[in-house]
Amino acid sequence: MLERIRIVLIGTSHPGNIGATARAMHNMALSDLALVAPRCEPITADSVSRASGADHLVHGARVVDTLEEAVADCTLVVGASARSRTLPWPMLSPRELGDRLPQELADPDARVALVFGREDSGLTNAELQRCHAHVHIPTNPDFSSLNLAAAVQVLAYECRQAWLAGEPAAPVEPDQALATHAELEHYFAHLERTLVAIGFHDPATPRQLMARLRRFTLRARPERMELNILRGILSDTEKLAPPRDE
Amino acid sequence: MLERIRIVLIGTSHPGNIGATARAMHNMALSDLALVAPRCEPITADSVSRASGADHLVHGARVVDTLEEAVADCTLVVGASARSRTLPWPMLSPRELGDRLPQELADPDARVALVFGREDSGLTNAELQRCHAHVHIPTNPDFSSLNLAAAVQVLAYECRQAWLAGEPAAPVEPDQALATHAELEHYFAHLERTLVAIGFHDPATPRQLMARLRRFTLRARPERMELNILRGILSDTEKLAPPRDE
Repeated sequence: MLERIRIVLIGTSHPGNIGATARAMHNMALSDLALVAPRCEPITADSVSRASGADHLVHGARVVDTLEEAVADCTLVVGASARSRTLPWPMLSPRELGDRLPQELADPDARVALVFGREDSGLTNAELQRCHAHVHIPTNPDFSSLNLAAAVQVLAYECRQAWLAGEPAAPVEPDQALATHAELEHYFAHLERTLVAIGFHDPATPRQLMARLRRFTLRARPERMELNILRGILSDTEKLAPPRDE
Repeated sequence: MLERIRIVLIGTSHPGNIGATARAMHNMALSDLALVAPRCEPITADSVSRASGADHLVHGARVVDTLEEAVADCTLVVGASARSRTLPWPMLSPRELGDRLPQELADPDARVALVFGREDSGLTNAELQRCHAHVHIPTNPDFSSLNLAAAVQVLAYECRQAWLAGEPAAPVEPDQALATHAELEHYFAHLERTLVAIGFHDPATPRQLMARLRRFTLRARPERMELNILRGILSDTEKLAPPRDE
């Protein structure tokens, strides 16, 4: 189970934090690390030193340009969020996240991504809205900014606790495959295109429309077949839309 | 409760680890730090930098020569131990430790010490035998050496979890009203009417289409506002549908 949990770091600035993250992961037997647009060289003397024997995870990290590439194959994407945002999103505690993992990963094709933002500014709203849920580590309200690797350590610890707690429960519906992140993003792009075409949505005055529709849809954890139905509806709707003013 | 939990570091070699420990403590609202015979100067540029705003805990740390002085007033002393020793000792998991804290600290004069050993060699047998119990953070057996501050972070997190479990939970999103059953049924009727109008759905050959859309939608537990958005989309879609053959 643990090998199908990916740690995703976005825009990390300090090589030491990448090394310390690798150490925290390896301590808990996580092994899948992805770096999205790091703002530093990942492999330095500092990162290798802080990895303290887990630098093979730094060397093996996949480096990609976008969050989408990092989580395309994931069936559950959870963003670490320090604070509640204007648009509330499904929120888990670290323990609730751990408790969910055996079920989430019961299907051998399932993959979970835990996404961590920049040291100085965390995850953007756009990034948070690509997540099924957010996880908040309950901290001192007067001093809530955890070190990046410390945050990874706490969540990795809860992942390992969940794994140690026992064998995964039997999958409820083994043949109902969940949509992957990439499939969901194709759907959201199709949805937005259609809403523009029918004149419901004006991207110039978005009013959180797509964010609200994302939140609603992600909360339901769509299956692939359900997404196919929704895309069929969008395709038929698009055909009825008036031609664009061009 | 949290103010009566003391973190005790014995023989620490690296100022950065003292600073990172202070940060981990303050993140979880622990405030009592004692340093036993540190093997480095505790207050350095590196420790202040790694404390990242929690350096008041480093400045306020009590520095003593012996474990006895550091824990003299404590009613429970727990040593962090990486491995089982020749003489088995009462052993707690981090979660079991957390679960015990409210009871242990129910008396306002009670104090708990969590004792951490040297970066290179941990606690000596003599030190471990001064503890009421040992706590072992379950790690990857192939890579069990946690960074000192990471170990403090995990135990401090469990302390805070235990404290929060006794606090009344904050209400979550009190103003996000869920849609009522009646509102949902109006929506499903509107949805089916629209899918017929655009030619996607033929009630004569339903193929469980509406059942699947219901299951998907109900799983998300829609809020009233979300349903209003979805009904707005349906209304705009209906307007584009061709007139019925009548």
